[in-house]
Order: sequence, then structure tokens, then C-alpha cells
Amino acid sequence: MELLKQRILKDGKIIGNDILKVDSFLNHQMDVQLFNEMGKEFYRLFAYKKITKILTIESSGIGIACIAAQYFNVPVVFAKKTEARNLDSEAYLSEVYSFTKDKTYIIRVSKNYINSKDTVLIIDDFLANGKAALGLAEIADQAGACLGGVGIAIEKGFQEGGKILREKGINLKSLAIVNSMQDGEISFAE
Amino acid sequence: MELLKQRILKDGKIIGNDILKVDSFLNHQMDVQLFNEMGKEFYRLFAYKKITKILTIESSGIGIACIAAQYFNVPVVFAKKTEARNLDSEAYLSEVYSFTKDKTYIIRVSKNYINSKDTVLIIDDFLANGKAALGLAEIADQAGACLGGVGIAIEKGFQEGGKILREKGINLKSLAIVNSMQDGEISFAE
Repeated sequence: MELLKQRILKDGKIIGNDILKVDSFLNHQMDVQLFNEMGKEFYRLFAYKKITKILTIESSGIGIACIAAQYFNVPVVFAKKTEARNLDSEAYLSEVYSFTKDKTYIIRVSKNYINSKDTVLIIDDFLANGKAALGLAEIADQAGACLGGVGIAIEKGFQEGGKILREKGINLKSLAIVNSMQDGEISFAE
Repeated sequence: MELLKQRILKDGKIIGNDILKVDSFLNHQMDVQLFNEMGKEFYRLFAYKKITKILTIESSGIGIACIAAQYFNVPVVFAKKTEARNLDSEAYLSEVYSFTKDKTYIIRVSKNYINSKDTVLIIDDFLANGKAALGLAEIADQAGACLGGVGIAIEKGFQEGGKILREKGINLKSLAIVNSMQDGEISFAE
């Protein structure tokens, strides 16, 4: 998506060789006009799947997911992060390992809000190692729902998440794929 | 706001005498159509303040804030919760005590995203003890910004937050004020 790529080039900040800071428009301050263009693009990419629910994870996926949901006209459910795997018969649980924080947390979605009649679109702001997306996909699977796809704003093409998801046959679409950030220069996949 | 009150009566679940569970439409599953009606109402209530930025806190305020921001045509900034008060000269910090979790956490907003030219509208899903709203107001104050108002979806009128904010002269508007939930019966303030 050209608009997002241009915005990354204009306002993204590279730290070291692998951190891309986009908190001026994506995940701290949020440019809701840009989110609307991203929401339209997700709709263009996934509408044919007859999505019934958008699934995301707190916190930074929520804004994009809510704006996108307006185009699909479906509710959003966000998975909550907790540290303990409490016994919870009313929720679907999955473990997610965070490389950034070097810890494993549990994500949780109430059984009331996803079921086997749903076709779920997972939306998130970033895809790097793919752990969060895989955890959300596992929750959709536990619910017996159909996974319609995974829509990502920015995929780090030089990390393994995209490859893992695509090899599993998951219908993954990323609006911008950053292939490298060598020497402060960002290059995108076609 | 009648639509929200009706929805609370229809889908809200009372647990004990003071917990109102609205996670089927507000803070786990999110009804984005309802959020749009709430966003219009916030715009009707606060547009005259010439809001330049919406400030909220992760996680459950983010969806409502993003949808509302479309009417104001301004960016959203969400405060991040952390446990440690790291030295951070680049961020405004405030302490927030959570009664639910019985712990104090630090909320943090980058200095890049609020400044003295801003008129800030704080938006959140719930107001109970008022600690989160007061923490956000303190951050707006540290930034030298004008606080245009605080917009809340559901205020628990039987807890002290609303009183504290109003006594401070804060322009607080809540779309639904629950005055009591005795014996499973919800009554609203006029």
C-alpha cells in the first residue's frame, strides 16, 4: 500500500538494524485518517471471505481493527494479555512468547465472542516473529471458526513470521513489507 | 445517551453490587456501530472546544477514541501503562492506582505527541474512582495543553470519580451514568 510505505519512509525511525519506530502515526499516536485508508485496503483484500468478526490483540492492534471493522460491518474482539494461565473454562487461551520482552504471556478470548459459525480476520499493526498472529490463529481454531485471513499493517520481511504463516497456508496480506533497514535505509518488498 | 443506556440494560451483566460487565459490546467484543453513535455524541458535546487531540489509555479506551476521532478529525494518543518509573526525559509520566488490581502503575505519553498548543479531549470507556482520568489530565497539564474535557462512556455514579473530577472544574460528560445496581436492577442518573 503506497500511502503507508510513503508514511513509513517519511516518519518511521530506524533504531539499530531491526527496530522500526512508527509511534508518531501507528502505535502511540494514531493517524485515524491513515487507518481509514488501511481499513479500506483490508476490505478490498479480504471482503470475498465474508468475514464475520475481526480478532486482534491489545493494545496497538485495537485502533486499526476498529476502523477496519467499519468497512466489514462486523464486531471486533480483542484478546487480552495476562501473565497467569488461570483455569478458565469460559475462555480460549493461547501462549505467546514475546521476543521484545523475553517472556511468555497468555492471551485470552471469551468463548462467548467467537464460535464455529465465524469467519475471522486477524488484524495487527506489526508482524515480526509471528507469535502473536499464531496465538490468535490458534484461538480461532479452538473456537472452530474459519480463519479468513491475517491482515498486517507492517511486516518485517527480514524476520521469520511471514514465512511461517505463509508456509502454514494462512492467507496473510501485509500492507507494507520491510525487507531491510540496513544503514538507515528502508527497502520494501514489491 | 439513550442508545447506550438501552444497550447496558439489554446486555450488561451485574456481578455483586458494583461490577458491571459490558464485555459483549464495549471492552472485549466491541460494537463499532455503537461506537460510531457514541463518537457522534462526543462530537456534539465537545466540538465547541476546538479539540486538537484525543487522549486515552490502553487498552479498552482505544477503540472508542479512534472511532470518535473521525468526527473531530484529529489524531489519537494512547498512554501506555508500565510498571516501572524509568527515567524518561522524553515522556510525560503519571501514577495511577488501580483498585481492581490493587497496584500502582505508571502511565506514559511521549512528549512528541502532546504540547502546549493542544486542546485535549480525554476519552475512556469507564469512570469509577477517576484515577485513570486524573492521571491523563495530569499528563495534559504537564504538556501545558488545555484540557477541553473528559468524555466517558459509562460512569459509575455511585463511585467517587465523577464527583472528584467535577469538583476540580473538569468538563466531564458521561454518556450513561449508572447510579445504582442494587438487586440486579440498574438505574441511571437523568
